[in-house]
Amino acid sequence: MSFTLNDLPLRDDLRGRSAYGAPQLDVPVVLNTNENPHAPSPRLAKALAEAVADTALGLNRYPDRDAVRLREGLAAYLGHGLTAAHVWAANGSNEVLQQLLQAFGGPGRTAMGFEPSYSMHPIISRGTGTHWVPVPRDADFRIDVDAALAAIEEHRPSVVFLTSPNNPTGTALEMADIERVARAAPGVVVVDEAYAEFRRANTPSALSLLPDHPRVIVSRTMSKAFALAGARVGYLAAHPAVVDALQLVRLPYHLSAVTQTVALTALEHAEELLGAVDDLRAERDALVLWLREQGFSVADSDANFVLFGEFEDRSRVWRDLLDQDVLIRETGPDGWLRVTVGTSEEMAAFRAALLKVTGR
Amino acid sequence: MSFTLNDLPLRDDLRGRSAYGAPQLDVPVVLNTNENPHAPSPRLAKALAEAVADTALGLNRYPDRDAVRLREGLAAYLGHGLTAAHVWAANGSNEVLQQLLQAFGGPGRTAMGFEPSYSMHPIISRGTGTHWVPVPRDADFRIDVDAALAAIEEHRPSVVFLTSPNNPTGTALEMADIERVARAAPGVVVVDEAYAEFRRANTPSALSLLPDHPRVIVSRTMSKAFALAGARVGYLAAHPAVVDALQLVRLPYHLSAVTQTVALTALEHAEELLGAVDDLRAERDALVLWLREQGFSVADSDANFVLFGEFEDRSRVWRDLLDQDVLIRETGPDGWLRVTVGTSEEMAAFRAALLKVTGR
Repeated sequence: MSFTLNDLPLRDDLRGRSAYGAPQLDVPVVLNTNENPHAPSPRLAKALAEAVADTALGLNRYPDRDAVRLREGLAAYLGHGLTAAHVWAANGSNEVLQQLLQAFGGPGRTAMGFEPSYSMHPIISRGTGTHWVPVPRDADFRIDVDAALAAIEEHRPSVVFLTSPNNPTGTALEMADIERVARAAPGVVVVDEAYAEFRRANTPSALSLLPDHPRVIVSRTMSKAFALAGARVGYLAAHPAVVDALQLVRLPYHLSAVTQTVALTALEHAEELLGAVDDLRAERDALVLWLREQGFSVADSDANFVLFGEFEDRSRVWRDLLDQDVLIRETGPDGWLRVTVGTSEEMAAFRAALLKVTGR
Repeated sequence: MSFTLNDLPLRDDLRGRSAYGAPQLDVPVVLNTNENPHAPSPRLAKALAEAVADTALGLNRYPDRDAVRLREGLAAYLGHGLTAAHVWAANGSNEVLQQLLQAFGGPGRTAMGFEPSYSMHPIISRGTGTHWVPVPRDADFRIDVDAALAAIEEHRPSVVFLTSPNNPTGTALEMADIERVARAAPGVVVVDEAYAEFRRANTPSALSLLPDHPRVIVSRTMSKAFALAGARVGYLAAHPAVVDALQLVRLPYHLSAVTQTVALTALEHAEELLGAVDDLRAERDALVLWLREQGFSVADSDANFVLFGEFEDRSRVWRDLLDQDVLIRETGPDGWLRVTVGTSEEMAAFRAALLKVTGR
C-alpha cells in the first residue's frame, strides 16, 4: 500500500529528481516547445496514410534494422555530397545524442557544453554516466572560443557539444569557431543543428566542415522546420566511422517500419513541410524588432524562438501570460523567457498579452 | 581517407565488437527472429491508415509524453485489475529494458540472468554500465532455484532477469519459483514475458504476482503474438512506483504519436491479431513431436519457437538449411538451433529441408 519510489533500488543520482519536460497544457496559444505551428495538410495526411497502409501489411516482420532507404532520403535532403553511409537516424535527436554518448561517453569520460544551452545535453550525459562539464557563455550568449579551448585543454572531454543555433538563446556559431574547437578537441564534436533551417541568410551549416573534420558530427531533427515533432525523427551526418560506432550501441530495430515510412514520405513532401520556414523567419525577425522597440532585451535569433527579458520575476510573467491563454517557456538564464515563433495570429496574441501583463 | 573507427574515442568495452542482430536475408522461408507469420489483414491496414491520417494532421505537435491512452489500452488488454498507472510503454521491449537498467542498474550495480537466455539482457546491461552476472541453467534449460538463490545472496543484484517463456529455449517458469526469487532478490525482478501469449494451457503469467510483489516487473511486447514486430511497441506492468522511476530516465517524447496511434488501433483489433496464436501453438506442439520422432533432442516450448539439436556442427546445418531457402537461427547453446514456428506451409518446407540436410 505504502510502497513508493524510495522502496525501489533507484540509482542514487536519480533520487529526488523530477521527470524532464515542459508542461503539456491545453491552452489556445501554445508557444513553449518550439514546434512549427503549421500542421501537415490534408493532402500530406492522405499520402502518409497511404504509405502506412502499405507498410502495415508487413508489420508482422521486423523493420529494416539499418533504415537504409530513410538514411538515403535524409542524405539527399542534406546534400553536401552525403550518402546513407554518412547518416544515422533514431527516435528523435535525443536518442541520437544518447547513442553518441553511449559510444563515446560513459563512466570515466567527460562531455562539455556551453551554457545556457539545450538542457537535454547534460541530462543525457548524466543518464549515460558521462561527467558533465558546463562552460559559461559570455554576456551576449556567445561562446568565448579562447575560454572554450582552455576548458577543453583542462578537461579533455571525449564529447563536446556545440549548438548552432543554440537553444534557448537562438545564437548561431561562426564556422571558424567550430573549426577551432574541432581542431582542439581530443574526441568528437557534436554540432546540434536542430534549428538549422531557420538560420538567417549567410549563416553557414557545419555540414560543410564534415569532409575535413571526421570527428565533427552534425545532428538534425525533423521536429522543427519539418513540422514533424509528433513523428520523432532525429538524425545526424558524420564520417561513416561514426555511423559504424553507433551500430554497436543502438538497440536492434530501434526505428519502427512506420516511423521509417512516415519520415520517407515526409521527405518526399519536403517542399510543403518546409514551406512555412521563410514566413516563420520573417515573423521571428519582426518579433525581435518589436520586442526591442518595447524596451526588452532580446538575443539575436537564428532559430524559431526568441529569448527575451529581463524580468525581476520571470515566473510571474510566465504565469500571467498563461492566464492570458498564452503558454511560453520559463527556461534559460534567470530573468529571461523563451517564446516560440508561431503564426501571425499567435504572435499578435502573444504581443497583446505581453503588453498587458508587463503594463507597457 | 583512412579514418576508421579506431580513430574515434570509442569506449574501450566496445572495441572489436560487432553490431547485434540476426542476418536480415531475403529468403523464401524466414524462421529466424520469432516473428508471427501472419500479416495484418487489408481491413486492419485500412484501419491503421485511417487512424494515422487523423494523427498526421497534428504531427507538427509533440506527442503525449506520457502516452496515457496507450497505457490505458495496454492495461485493459492485460486485465488483472491493472490501470495506466501500472503500465509503461516504449519503442520495443528492448527500450523498456534499457530504461529499467538506467533506473535500477548502472555503474557499480549488478544485473543477473539465467543462461542461455535472451542475449539482449547482457548486452543492454553492459550498454548501461551494469555488471552482468550469468548463472547457468540446468541440463533441461530450467532454472535451479537453489542455485539462483545462492547466486543472488552472493552478488546482491539490483536487477534479476527471469524469462517465461525463455528465449531461446522456450522454457516457462513456475510461479512458486518466481516468488522464491522475488522474495530473495534485494532489487527488482524483471520477468520477461515477450512470448507469454504462446504459453501452454495452465502455464501462469507473473502478472498474477504483481499485487503482492511490488518489486516484480513483467515486460511484454506487441512484436510476437500481436504480429507487430515492425511497429516496435514494448511495454511492462508493475507497481506504479516503478513507472514513476522510469519517468526519470526516459527520453522526453520517446514514443511517437504515430506509434501510439498504431498500437492503440492494433489493441482495438486484438481479436484479429491474436487470432493465429492458437494455430501457432498447435503447430509448435506438432513440431516438437515430429522433431522428437526424428530422433532430435527438443526443449519443451511455451513459445513460438523450438530449440532442437544436437548437432556436431550446427553452423553447417544452419548454412545447409539456408541453401534450401530456409532461414533459422544459430543461437543458444552450442550444438542447438532455434526455429521459429511459421505457417503450416513454412513448417512443411522446414521439415523437408531438415530431413534433406541431415540425411534422415
